[in-house]
Amino acid sequence: MTVDYIFILDLIGVIAFAASGVLTAMRKRMDAFGIFIVAFVTALGGGTLRDVLIDVPVFWMHNTIYLFVIIGTVILSIFFQIKLVRLKRALVFFDSIGLAVFTLIGLERALAAGFSPEICIATGTMTACVGGIIRDILSNKIPIIFHKEIYATACILGGGVYFALKLTPMSGFFISLITLSIIFGVRILAVYHDLKLPSVYAGKK
Amino acid sequence: MTVDYIFILDLIGVIAFAASGVLTAMRKRMDAFGIFIVAFVTALGGGTLRDVLIDVPVFWMHNTIYLFVIIGTVILSIFFQIKLVRLKRALVFFDSIGLAVFTLIGLERALAAGFSPEICIATGTMTACVGGIIRDILSNKIPIIFHKEIYATACILGGGVYFALKLTPMSGFFISLITLSIIFGVRILAVYHDLKLPSVYAGKK
Amino acid sequence: MTVDYIFILDLIGVIAFAASGVLTAMRKRMDAFGIFIVAFVTALGGGTLRDVLIDVPVFWMHNTIYLFVIIGTVILSIFFQIKLVRLKRALVFFDSIGLAVFTLIGLERALAAGFSPEICIATGTMTACVGGIIRDILSNKIPIIFHKEIYATACILGGGVYFALKLTPMSGFFISLITLSIIFGVRILAVYHDLKLPSVYAGKK
Repeated sequence: MTVDYIFILDLIGVIAFAASGVLTAMRKRMDAFGIFIVAFVTALGGGTLRDVLIDVPVFWMHNTIYLFVIIGTVILSIFFQIKLVRLKRALVFFDSIGLAVFTLIGLERALAAGFSPEICIATGTMTACVGGIIRDILSNKIPIIFHKEIYATACILGGGVYFALKLTPMSGFFISLITLSIIFGVRILAVYHDLKLPSVYAGKK
Repeated sequence: MTVDYIFILDLIGVIAFAASGVLTAMRKRMDAFGIFIVAFVTALGGGTLRDVLIDVPVFWMHNTIYLFVIIGTVILSIFFQIKLVRLKRALVFFDSIGLAVFTLIGLERALAAGFSPEICIATGTMTACVGGIIRDILSNKIPIIFHKEIYATACILGGGVYFALKLTPMSGFFISLITLSIIFGVRILAVYHDLKLPSVYAGKK
Repeated sequence: MTVDYIFILDLIGVIAFAASGVLTAMRKRMDAFGIFIVAFVTALGGGTLRDVLIDVPVFWMHNTIYLFVIIGTVILSIFFQIKLVRLKRALVFFDSIGLAVFTLIGLERALAAGFSPEICIATGTMTACVGGIIRDILSNKIPIIFHKEIYATACILGGGVYFALKLTPMSGFFISLITLSIIFGVRILAVYHDLKLPSVYAGKK
């Protein structure tokens, strides 16, 4: 049963990430194909890199539901584009679900492949963040997560808590739940309170 | 014998893609090495991603002819650069051959590796399109195929026809020939009639 | 013992490449996470692509020292950022060590995996150059090595000498030493004498 609810959250994350790709691509006035590709890499780029790095079969190559979910998201997004902009608040919500689930899945896949905790945290963070980075590169922007948002920080924090709880006798289900909540919570708090990482720059701005 | 004529068309595609890389890199005033790298990734980037995703050995790592064909193309392109601009019409012709052949090879490699038709079409399209996308990213542009040309659309259409014909008793040779013709034809028609995908944008431009 | 001194030079290269990532990211005013990611891909991007292409486990996934060395470099760089700019001359020195060592490691890993000399030289050059290319793409610039510096040229030259010396009865240790010296020397000479590749452009500038 655990697998099922993670899978549903995973698809919610894919839809949210794909929709953020659609919004970015539309702002650059791309055509329908460009929109689809940006949606595709935003949603699947992180997991693809993860699977290549840990050397397991690339997940969406073996399960066509991801492809169809993204196609559906793009078509619906194009139809309801004016409403999509109004949905921005909901998108942040779903995007944060995606961030949390992608990190957890990345962590667990790397752990299952036998990697050390530090590498698992790095893998989880990449799974969640690389899609958005490629999205911004394809749109010829400096990736937004590099200078505007607490994003990866939430993933790294969640990963740390995950491995700390692994040392306790807590069940896997609760460890997952707490990890998801922390990543989701930190991200949502950061968005609504406009939190940023402290500046690392010495001297005058 | 089938293998041989596909291989020759493949090399024609590599030369055409490499030449389009050279032209793009020269417009950005890159040095000889930059020109070579852009030519290299334009010609081989799509097939490399394909082989990594379907987890087979990367094709050009095991056959140095690709490396030498690209080096030769770059040297000849630099020597005859002024004429190269005049050759633009011929380049579109060769580029369209490359598009068709790369798609077909991508389709068939993915099919041979046991993937489903949808994933094979996605793989074929990536094989043909990713090189040009990386070329444009390396040149700090929004990839041209995202907003100006019917390109991937031709690949997807060709892939659909390929699998539709697979359901008939038609021989593999003719299926390949028809697939190649459709991709080539749609692309050439799109260039000469300046076809674009219909706009997906609501409201005023 | 050979392994040990190569490993130490490798870590020096990682530190130098990470520091060049930090400097580039800081100039773009990225936040701490952005700085870390750029440092990370600059230092490890080339070796990651190498291991994916020759299909061996990705080196830093199995040895966490690389992760910690980069984290340490980023923290120290942020603390001593004002002095870092003054250290530019030292950085070029370390960066050139990194260039030489990364090329040699790339060459030897590809050779050990059974690839032909041309492909080994290409692999060595990629190992040394791809990190800097991704660094510049993440910072939304045309990669500097494409139009300003003799960089890959040093790697290719070193690779050629390596395989030429392999034909002689010279010991592996001396071949490595000469290869490293040539790459390091050509790069340092190019920086201090502002050498560039000859222009390939016909006609007026």
